Amino acid sequence: MQIAITGTGCYIPSITIPNDDFAANNFLNSDGTPIQHENRLVIEKFKAITGIGERRYVEPHLNTSDIALLAAEKALTDANIDKEELDYIILAHNFGDVSSGQSQSDTIPSLASRVKHLLRIHNPKCIAYDLLFGCPGWVEGVIQACAFIKSGMATKCLVIGAETLSRVTDPHDRDSMIYSDGAGAAVIEAVENGGKILSHATRTFTYEEAYFLFYGTSYRPTAKNTKYIKMYGRKIYEFAITNVPKAMKECLNESGAGIEDVKKIFIHQANEKMDEAIVSRFYGLYDRSMPKDVMPMNIHKMGNSSVATIPTLFDMVRKGNLKNQSIEKEDVVIFASVGAGMNINAVIYKV
Amino acid sequence: MQIAITGTGCYIPSITIPNDDFAANNFLNSDGTPIQHENRLVIEKFKAITGIGERRYVEPHLNTSDIALLAAEKALTDANIDKEELDYIILAHNFGDVSSGQSQSDTIPSLASRVKHLLRIHNPKCIAYDLLFGCPGWVEGVIQACAFIKSGMATKCLVIGAETLSRVTDPHDRDSMIYSDGAGAAVIEAVENGGKILSHATRTFTYEEAYFLFYGTSYRPTAKNTKYIKMYGRKIYEFAITNVPKAMKECLNESGAGIEDVKKIFIHQANEKMDEAIVSRFYGLYDRSMPKDVMPMNIHKMGNSSVATIPTLFDMVRKGNLKNQSIEKEDVVIFASVGAGMNINAVIYKV
Repeated sequence: MQIAITGTGCYIPSITIPNDDFAANNFLNSDGTPIQHENRLVIEKFKAITGIGERRYVEPHLNTSDIALLAAEKALTDANIDKEELDYIILAHNFGDVSSGQSQSDTIPSLASRVKHLLRIHNPKCIAYDLLFGCPGWVEGVIQACAFIKSGMATKCLVIGAETLSRVTDPHDRDSMIYSDGAGAAVIEAVENGGKILSHATRTFTYEEAYFLFYGTSYRPTAKNTKYIKMYGRKIYEFAITNVPKAMKECLNESGAGIEDVKKIFIHQANEKMDEAIVSRFYGLYDRSMPKDVMPMNIHKMGNSSVATIPTLFDMVRKGNLKNQSIEKEDVVIFASVGAGMNINAVIYKV
Repeated sequence: MQIAITGTGCYIPSITIPNDDFAANNFLNSDGTPIQHENRLVIEKFKAITGIGERRYVEPHLNTSDIALLAAEKALTDANIDKEELDYIILAHNFGDVSSGQSQSDTIPSLASRVKHLLRIHNPKCIAYDLLFGCPGWVEGVIQACAFIKSGMATKCLVIGAETLSRVTDPHDRDSMIYSDGAGAAVIEAVENGGKILSHATRTFTYEEAYFLFYGTSYRPTAKNTKYIKMYGRKIYEFAITNVPKAMKECLNESGAGIEDVKKIFIHQANEKMDEAIVSRFYGLYDRSMPKDVMPMNIHKMGNSSVATIPTLFDMVRKGNLKNQSIEKEDVVIFASVGAGMNINAVIYKV
């Protein structure tokens, strides 16, 4: 018995927001003072660091659970399984359903229950729950699915990552340009042949790092108490480039595969410069330089959609929907993520 | 190897709210019309059905993650383990941290990360995540801990259930009298001797039932858009008395223990009449009547604190803090819960 990804799907929201849409924003520093540079320069610098030229937002009538459904349906079709055979629906997110124009998170019932309801699944033995684990939530959902399969509690799991960060961003915070909306999903199954999860690793750093990403009030001092997603970008950068490569290396060592076997690294689309630094340092741990094209990226057009980035990126490459990127049967690939918690995880997967 | 509960703890909030405190509330029907009866009668009827005479609320400076910590510290002391040895911190809740006077849920970072931070744990291999699964979340956390232990991914897990429902109740809704605040925790460990989880069962019913418990606006028509916890009490009652006994029976059958072995049933403190109907029907499935004292209850003084009820009740009985209730080594006990999702679960445990 081995554990494989037998189907994938994603939902790419329909509204494209180019960087120019932020040209008229009143960006402020965290202390409420005006930023010295004009927005044109702020946006140029933002693009140079993050690689983000545009991002996707959902239409006002859609919530996180709705786009989770759209990704889930595609993954189920791709896996070609009967939905009634699912043992688990695991939905990773961090803010619940936040309706357009609202600030409250709605998580009753859980978003996984909403998706199961919308999928019209009858089987009460299909267990639906939500997992909160920062941006690495989808990868962690895959790891939890492995635990259920290994322990004999499941054979087929649907793991979804969905988020609508456009609903929790402060328009006065430059970092808001990073965030986007999206959903990705995969079916994880016990199989005799085919793909195989070789190893996984997870780390939670909280001693000093717990609040590097947090929910805080607007940078506009006269704004209401409403909270928005906030980050200490510099601290996260240092933390990530130090700890993610180490976790990836420990995970690869455990997998039995070698660095030369690694064909692709699907890294959380957080920030292009940071992602490049992580992967470059990872190869540095093996005294190698980063191979060309090892790191598929869609951040330029998709932004950072939190839990949705890796399943979306993997689905695109798997189905030939990302230019100059493809994977073949038996390729060894890595999923690696970092985010709020602060959490880090990695999975080594033989396609 | 077997899986045992090696330590427990709970935090009982310090503010006691007697039923009389609701005497001046302007209770309305769900359509906004006034309730025909005077509050004295509403409260009398409420008490006759639910058994609740008073409930506990946290002080304004405390949040869900704070009381989760207080329960966790007691469980760790009781288990007498080094906190750095924990492989998992699993925190079940449903609303995140909702500060006093606010309506937004704060889940960045996850509440489990906050607790790990407050426990001053260094070990990054201690994985902290939040689980959203309605009121049965704590029992489901125990089941997930079993999966990690059985699959070899963990040996020691801390499972916490914490909620501050006082922060999400509509003062115009009679059902608000049900809800309370609380936190309970347990250490789940792989051991050679001692307690043993014999079996577990989980069900998620969403086809018709997904929105029996939901987040909805106030019954006062002129109120703002703020959402509060809402329920279809009659539907939940019918659902619970039909499906919980069946799940308990299937779980007991799988455990190898017989109905005559069951010493105590720790049932989610939802509503006394409903809990009695569930346990009575469970015994009815074996053509037996419910034994006296099989069902410890603390709802009279504690109300319904969602995920916190079972670990709090179990901790109280285990430590001799509930009048006329006790458990002995080797007793077979049942944990059973039902709540938003709609989710049901049960665990058969040999003490």
